[in-house]
Amino acid sequence: MAQDLVIGIDIGGQTTKCGVVDARGTVLAQTVIRSDTYNTVEPYIAELADALKRIISESKTEGAIRGIGVGAPNGNYYTGTIENAVNLSWGGTTTIPFAKLLSEAMDGIPVSLTNDANAAAMGEMTYGAARGMKNFIMITLGTGVGSGIVINGEMVYGHDGFAGELGHTCVIRHNGRTCNCGKTGCLETYCSATGVARTAREWLEMSDEPSLLRSLDKITSKDVYEAAKEGDKLALKIFNYTGTLLGEKFADFIEFSAPEAIVLFGGLARSKEFLTEPILKAMNDNVLPLWRGKVKLVYSQLKESDAAILGASALAWEL
Amino acid sequence: MAQDLVIGIDIGGQTTKCGVVDARGTVLAQTVIRSDTYNTVEPYIAELADALKRIISESKTEGAIRGIGVGAPNGNYYTGTIENAVNLSWGGTTTIPFAKLLSEAMDGIPVSLTNDANAAAMGEMTYGAARGMKNFIMITLGTGVGSGIVINGEMVYGHDGFAGELGHTCVIRHNGRTCNCGKTGCLETYCSATGVARTAREWLEMSDEPSLLRSLDKITSKDVYEAAKEGDKLALKIFNYTGTLLGEKFADFIEFSAPEAIVLFGGLARSKEFLTEPILKAMNDNVLPLWRGKVKLVYSQLKESDAAILGASALAWEL
Repeated sequence: MAQDLVIGIDIGGQTTKCGVVDARGTVLAQTVIRSDTYNTVEPYIAELADALKRIISESKTEGAIRGIGVGAPNGNYYTGTIENAVNLSWGGTTTIPFAKLLSEAMDGIPVSLTNDANAAAMGEMTYGAARGMKNFIMITLGTGVGSGIVINGEMVYGHDGFAGELGHTCVIRHNGRTCNCGKTGCLETYCSATGVARTAREWLEMSDEPSLLRSLDKITSKDVYEAAKEGDKLALKIFNYTGTLLGEKFADFIEFSAPEAIVLFGGLARSKEFLTEPILKAMNDNVLPLWRGKVKLVYSQLKESDAAILGASALAWEL
Repeated sequence: MAQDLVIGIDIGGQTTKCGVVDARGTVLAQTVIRSDTYNTVEPYIAELADALKRIISESKTEGAIRGIGVGAPNGNYYTGTIENAVNLSWGGTTTIPFAKLLSEAMDGIPVSLTNDANAAAMGEMTYGAARGMKNFIMITLGTGVGSGIVINGEMVYGHDGFAGELGHTCVIRHNGRTCNCGKTGCLETYCSATGVARTAREWLEMSDEPSLLRSLDKITSKDVYEAAKEGDKLALKIFNYTGTLLGEKFADFIEFSAPEAIVLFGGLARSKEFLTEPILKAMNDNVLPLWRGKVKLVYSQLKESDAAILGASALAWEL
């Protein structure tokens, strides 16, 4: 059988999604296992390999798998290792030779690995909104803010393999919010799904402005979205603020790499009806005149349930 | 004769420097012409071609010139054009097919063109402090702040050829200084040579603090440097402030492309004895822990009188 299929694996803190994918981006078979059952990597790899063999067998694609692509927190493309991934139960503070271990468990099928945001960018370039683009920046607006940068048709990994941490560029210089990374004022403390919820809680406390959000016990970005859809003024202001901060930073990013487009992905990107306008306004107000109105803002075109698998799988085509 | 030489041309607003350069970065012959004698490009090209033929003849290198590299304001590498270069007397608001015109005037020798900061980065990579580096960011601290970004051993030109305008990323978001580009708060309004002089004038006006600078009519960054060397406290504070702002932005740049080093060049970089410490402190305080203390800050190693010609000439080796 021709080796015209790949496997994509997306490793998150709780679950690991994996699937067999063809060149058009069709997911032929997929499954999910838990990521957090073990405290060491070996039994996790064994369970993962079992799951992969099961979906290969189910889809009758034995011998057709050309390679395996993995998107994982702190994944290093150059070395195939996962380094200091504190969010993974077996990640700890060590350097795990993940690609090597998985390849061995999969009878030598080659494995390529990068972080989840880079994988998302690869997916978008291979199957999605960035097809045909050689210069774009992918921003993932999820629990955190991740990024994957493509320049001249190639993923930017940088000197050490960890380039593209735009979620940790500074958006509020003084008295900014504390970030999990130990810094303050990082973009992701304001413009991730959790950042939006933080803004909501902060603003509700700071003012008496009436809002549908006041009746809620625990506010999520989805609640803010629902309230905005109801026309809630505070919720709308929160999206305006979030979009403005994003657009201001996007202007800086454009001045760095002059991309054709910025591609948005992730849970919070679903609020595009409230984000697009303030992002574009702030981006164009803050960028050099030569790029004003010229850089596209586009949203992921991958089916959300498949996106994580597709992104990781895209890596494997380069093997 | 083997074609083992190149020509480098650095076009500034007032003067144009050009020289014949060998593969080791030795300038075999050089000359300077005025850039601002003409209002149209044709007579300028004719005079430039005459000057080039003169230095070729002087250095007895007829037939040995493999290519010509040009560093020019608003130079577009992709198209070989100079676009909207308002600082050039013949630049105007049009698009000038400069590389084509010069190649024709030079009997078909191929011409490659980019902006001056990119040329400086190429020079540093080919002959200077960034030799052997595949990922670095060149920052030129002159009248303005320019930048040239190298990723995976290649210059970053972006989608349209104009990438690397880090001098126009925002360093002071609210009430920032007005920039020539029309925006406010741009890095170059604070951290260029003119920015440093602006800081001095602003601070002298805002306080009564005694300073050697008070006796001066018109303050330049060189005056601030001289005063700092005398131990002038205000001058030292100005460098501390300038270095801190630079370091804060460098942290953002590192989070973008994870470079091995940031390379500083230009008149203001000569004040390295006062800039290095605050830059490194702010850079390491503001970057993600994974890069803390790991990204080098280096200064140009090119002889200043040759640097502009060498930078432009480096482009020609790729022809």
